[in-house]
Amino acid sequence: MSQIHPFHPLTPREIAKAATIVRHAFPGQTANFRVITLKEPAKAEMIPFLEHEHRGTVSDKPARIARVQVVLPDDKTSKFIELWVDIDHAAIIKKEHLVGKHPYIDSDYMQAVEKACLADPRIQKEIAHLQLPDGASVIVEAWACATDGLNDVSQRTTMCWFYMRLVNDHDANYYAYPLDLCAEVSEQLNVTKIYQLPSGPDERIGDKPKPFDRRKIHGAETEYSPGLRPSPRTTTKPYQVVQPEGPSFKTQGNYLEWEKWSMHIGFNYREGLTLHNVRYDNRSLFYRLSLAEMFVPYGDPRAPYPRKAAFDLGNDGAGINANNLRLGCDCLGHIKYFDGWHTTTSGDPVKLPNVICCHEQDDGILWKHTNFRTQNAVVTRSRILVLQTIITVSNYEYIFAFQFGQDGSIHYEVRATGILSTCPINIGDNVPYGTIVAPGVLAPYHQHLFSLRMDPAIDGHNNSLQVEESHAMPVDVNTFDHQGQSQAQVDSYNNPFGVGYVTRSSIVDREGGMDLDFTTNRTFKIVNENVINPVTGTPVGFKLLPAYSQMLLAHPESYHAKRSEFGKHAVWVTRYNDEEHFPSGRHTMQSTGGDGIATGIAKRAGSEDSLVRNKDIVIWHTFGSTHNPRIEDWPVMPSEKVVVGLKPVNFFTGNPGLDVAVSTQERNRSVLVDAGDNINSKSGCCKL
Amino acid sequence: MSQIHPFHPLTPREIAKAATIVRHAFPGQTANFRVITLKEPAKAEMIPFLEHEHRGTVSDKPARIARVQVVLPDDKTSKFIELWVDIDHAAIIKKEHLVGKHPYIDSDYMQAVEKACLADPRIQKEIAHLQLPDGASVIVEAWACATDGLNDVSQRTTMCWFYMRLVNDHDANYYAYPLDLCAEVSEQLNVTKIYQLPSGPDERIGDKPKPFDRRKIHGAETEYSPGLRPSPRTTTKPYQVVQPEGPSFKTQGNYLEWEKWSMHIGFNYREGLTLHNVRYDNRSLFYRLSLAEMFVPYGDPRAPYPRKAAFDLGNDGAGINANNLRLGCDCLGHIKYFDGWHTTTSGDPVKLPNVICCHEQDDGILWKHTNFRTQNAVVTRSRILVLQTIITVSNYEYIFAFQFGQDGSIHYEVRATGILSTCPINIGDNVPYGTIVAPGVLAPYHQHLFSLRMDPAIDGHNNSLQVEESHAMPVDVNTFDHQGQSQAQVDSYNNPFGVGYVTRSSIVDREGGMDLDFTTNRTFKIVNENVINPVTGTPVGFKLLPAYSQMLLAHPESYHAKRSEFGKHAVWVTRYNDEEHFPSGRHTMQSTGGDGIATGIAKRAGSEDSLVRNKDIVIWHTFGSTHNPRIEDWPVMPSEKVVVGLKPVNFFTGNPGLDVAVSTQERNRSVLVDAGDNINSKSGCCKL
Repeated sequence: MSQIHPFHPLTPREIAKAATIVRHAFPGQTANFRVITLKEPAKAEMIPFLEHEHRGTVSDKPARIARVQVVLPDDKTSKFIELWVDIDHAAIIKKEHLVGKHPYIDSDYMQAVEKACLADPRIQKEIAHLQLPDGASVIVEAWACATDGLNDVSQRTTMCWFYMRLVNDHDANYYAYPLDLCAEVSEQLNVTKIYQLPSGPDERIGDKPKPFDRRKIHGAETEYSPGLRPSPRTTTKPYQVVQPEGPSFKTQGNYLEWEKWSMHIGFNYREGLTLHNVRYDNRSLFYRLSLAEMFVPYGDPRAPYPRKAAFDLGNDGAGINANNLRLGCDCLGHIKYFDGWHTTTSGDPVKLPNVICCHEQDDGILWKHTNFRTQNAVVTRSRILVLQTIITVSNYEYIFAFQFGQDGSIHYEVRATGILSTCPINIGDNVPYGTIVAPGVLAPYHQHLFSLRMDPAIDGHNNSLQVEESHAMPVDVNTFDHQGQSQAQVDSYNNPFGVGYVTRSSIVDREGGMDLDFTTNRTFKIVNENVINPVTGTPVGFKLLPAYSQMLLAHPESYHAKRSEFGKHAVWVTRYNDEEHFPSGRHTMQSTGGDGIATGIAKRAGSEDSLVRNKDIVIWHTFGSTHNPRIEDWPVMPSEKVVVGLKPVNFFTGNPGLDVAVSTQERNRSVLVDAGDNINSKSGCCKL
Repeated sequence: MSQIHPFHPLTPREIAKAATIVRHAFPGQTANFRVITLKEPAKAEMIPFLEHEHRGTVSDKPARIARVQVVLPDDKTSKFIELWVDIDHAAIIKKEHLVGKHPYIDSDYMQAVEKACLADPRIQKEIAHLQLPDGASVIVEAWACATDGLNDVSQRTTMCWFYMRLVNDHDANYYAYPLDLCAEVSEQLNVTKIYQLPSGPDERIGDKPKPFDRRKIHGAETEYSPGLRPSPRTTTKPYQVVQPEGPSFKTQGNYLEWEKWSMHIGFNYREGLTLHNVRYDNRSLFYRLSLAEMFVPYGDPRAPYPRKAAFDLGNDGAGINANNLRLGCDCLGHIKYFDGWHTTTSGDPVKLPNVICCHEQDDGILWKHTNFRTQNAVVTRSRILVLQTIITVSNYEYIFAFQFGQDGSIHYEVRATGILSTCPINIGDNVPYGTIVAPGVLAPYHQHLFSLRMDPAIDGHNNSLQVEESHAMPVDVNTFDHQGQSQAQVDSYNNPFGVGYVTRSSIVDREGGMDLDFTTNRTFKIVNENVINPVTGTPVGFKLLPAYSQMLLAHPESYHAKRSEFGKHAVWVTRYNDEEHFPSGRHTMQSTGGDGIATGIAKRAGSEDSLVRNKDIVIWHTFGSTHNPRIEDWPVMPSEKVVVGLKPVNFFTGNPGLDVAVSTQERNRSVLVDAGDNINSKSGCCKL
């Protein structure tokens, strides 16, 4: 039996072994390996295993199973096949032809598309018509085509957007030069359509080439690469984090302990960072936490822009696009990195180095109280543990970080940075669905919708979703003028002064989607109705700290809505199912809808499987931003932060951070800045 | 003429001089000085002064005026008087009898109340009836009485809540022992009423004393003071911030420069920290920023609890209650402290040491982009400047911090910590407006409502409030099935695929209050319609990043609502007025309403003064939390964070942090945590 923990991602040896098993199963064929990843064990198998592990007793380990996706060019039923491979027993235990589905984006293929596109004589002629400035290099940005109903989705279609580099530097920001050209490329690498892009409010796809407008030429202000920019500001003095006794966390392989937290760190090509069996002080909190999907639809209505709508996890993959994080750049202090492993197209293991980093941060004051009678202040500082991964999806960067607190809280922070996706616009024109960020450069409005999947195990696997609101008590007098009334008269009213308010809560019985409402302080709590807090007398729980975000703006009947599904509601609750990890379906490439969370719920509606009270449930939070660009987001965006979280609510019997040691100068070694002024007086004005 | 900058708080010498001038004006009387603070110059005088200062030319300085509030026990019209004292000319330029108003809380008086209360024989008898355990010391917590319509508000009334300490340590947490007793004390220090508190859902104020229930005795779990707790956890390793070249900020007196920001730091007894003439890269942004008020109404409807409703600024004062911040405790790194100055009751200047701290923090990644074609990553780290003050208001602490970013953003972070205000509850009972945090200890529901006052000067003093929303474009086809249609047919629709969305915006013409709506991505922008961004073609502006918070729950006709006013709407816009700084009125002690922001707006409705488009305006943001306590908030609350902010929106011509130097290991000196595991394997389980 394997000595590897069931939650540990496949090791390189396991990846290689799975590939060998699959190759043997298809003799004479050349398999293009797209995925070789851990098929996580069925929860029914994991629960007893984890219970034994928790008690320190021995039990059987679930088998190590690889989920393999291959493209077999010669297969008759479907070229795209999923296999479940039992690695220990060298056996294929499941084989499924993924008819009508496409694998996630193949970067080798996309490069071939770009090449084919540029090599096409009609494209070359179009480029010539643009009369680009001397020294211009044309760049083709190939995008998966968002379904709009016009194409045969059984074949892969790629949209090619054109940009140019004017500066002879490969890190020049070509998004500053969106060209008035677009091409559609077929599965067989043929250019099937060429468009002149609409470049004004009333323009539509045209076929009359317009020469490049010289007024659209920029200077260094559109560059972000230091080599192409003036010298940076020098006013920012160095700032270093020193941990003289090292970090407070401990790891063994992918198992992590920090303060009272423990968890297993997972990683896969699609979700990137995943967390498993998250516990605090040895009490079970979450079976699994992960970002499950992310959808970025653009709001420009003009064809072909509706084809810009990216499933950055389903189509691109947060794991495969994770950055190689570098010491001293992405974090400060003592940093532990974790590598990921993926597969080459030929089935060889390939390391994705430093895709996750783990470090601590100071987070200001955890708690403080000054006794005003004694003037004695007691202060503790908050330390947080950060597990971070950063992905690049073409122009954009996303920084994803789980943050664990000494107060039992978990926060999930998303920062969006990188470069806006741009389109051409005529000088002098403007449109109501985009911002002009530089002459001739339109940054179209778009949304970023994230789905955080929370598989709770709050003191056990049977949990419930409780919705609580705060409401004013009804008033039972028309006036609050009690002058002259006796105390007994005043007391005869339930709410004599009109200030009372109460919480009302209900438990959700059936699967479904719900919305946020800050006006009633609507709070979503994941509770275990079987475990009652001994002091408060209420079920133990964790509450969601949501991000209040506009939901999907696209019409409910649009392909964007039908394909994404999760963007309709902020909070979803479903019954746990081993194979339901993705709220827009497992295969999002050119999907046509009907594969997502809402469809699943609709299918189960009314059945026993739709019951979610005191069951093994999953909570999904949709959040994000309606990103109507500012010019300040250009040429590279300052991080736009969105934070959601989970906090214990009547789970413990007191502040879990109460035992954090008080803050002292002896340990913290801060430095007093001299009271003397360090600025020179300006002539004619006095700044004292 | 004084060499002191017009925004600088009164110096100790000025405080002393103002007191002397006032004493001379009331010969033979003993003035009780409650306030000697800067009366900030009229804006009409400051604008030309600041323009000269900005250009480096010389101009007259506005006179230094002290706002003095005294209580003159012998005055016939009103004991409470406000005086404006011209310090340079030793002249009283205004004298106003504050008829029917009370000064903010006088801690000397409150101590006298506590003493008088404990000395009262009837109280002593009630305490005897409680049959407290041996060694118990009774503590009286005196609170300003929130108006409920039952008392004569022309006289001061104080509510005394009773607690006990069981442990013989002055830092023992007496809030763990709320006693079943309450007293009302008159201006003349007489106990005028004694109540037995309602301690169950159906109980009302009683007069039958119940002995203290021994089941309510706690152990160390209700203590926060390290001397009364078991040893703290030792797992948290030290974490230090090192700035080898010192801080990046410079100060001269209360004038501060950091990165491209500049501002004057103000301080007064009531608002605490205030900011003036906030500029970025020498462009004007805000004339003044401050927390203007804060209201904490409790939701327990039973008399006398409706009298618990604190105006923590108006009644208590964020300045006078500011903590003396200590090196190494409240912040890390290089820290500059600013002192405040106040007055004794006799008019002598008194230093409030270290009430503001200024330091830098690393804030993660400012921006990043990896060119996926070259794999070159460019990363900059975000440095923020923090100006922080921490106040203690009886049981609670609030940590207020303005945070300035290199991207031109300003964030205002509030952390609530400290100890919950508690009431007694019978063992076994529970109520729908509070949480039982320990046996016999009820933490009642309450709200924290903050009002952030933003006096903008976005590229000038005439600004407008723009409200923008994002809306789906109407669909002009019932189906998005365009299969078989020509491109021209598809293009004949405005929104052929149902994915288009646009922003719609309007400028607010008249003063008023507005609400948030995340479902439409409603965005409040402060714009200068006279200054058009040369690239985007839109007015320059800053947008509010609001905190989505439930507004005041109390009934609109209740005293809570009438007294607070600002708690009704999330965003208010008013015309600038030198004397309108406080959205619940200048005098909140025992106020009866009709003094706040809504009343002011109603008075001006329809007049020229109510016009706010392209005028000198003020924006007020109401935010906070409906705080239904968790047991995790006990016995001392982990910081509960609420953050609001302001971000440039088409103010600059690109990312203002574009010139921040890239992040390097050479400067940041991070440490790689060895890849080897540092956790010992547990028996029987494998964590790899």
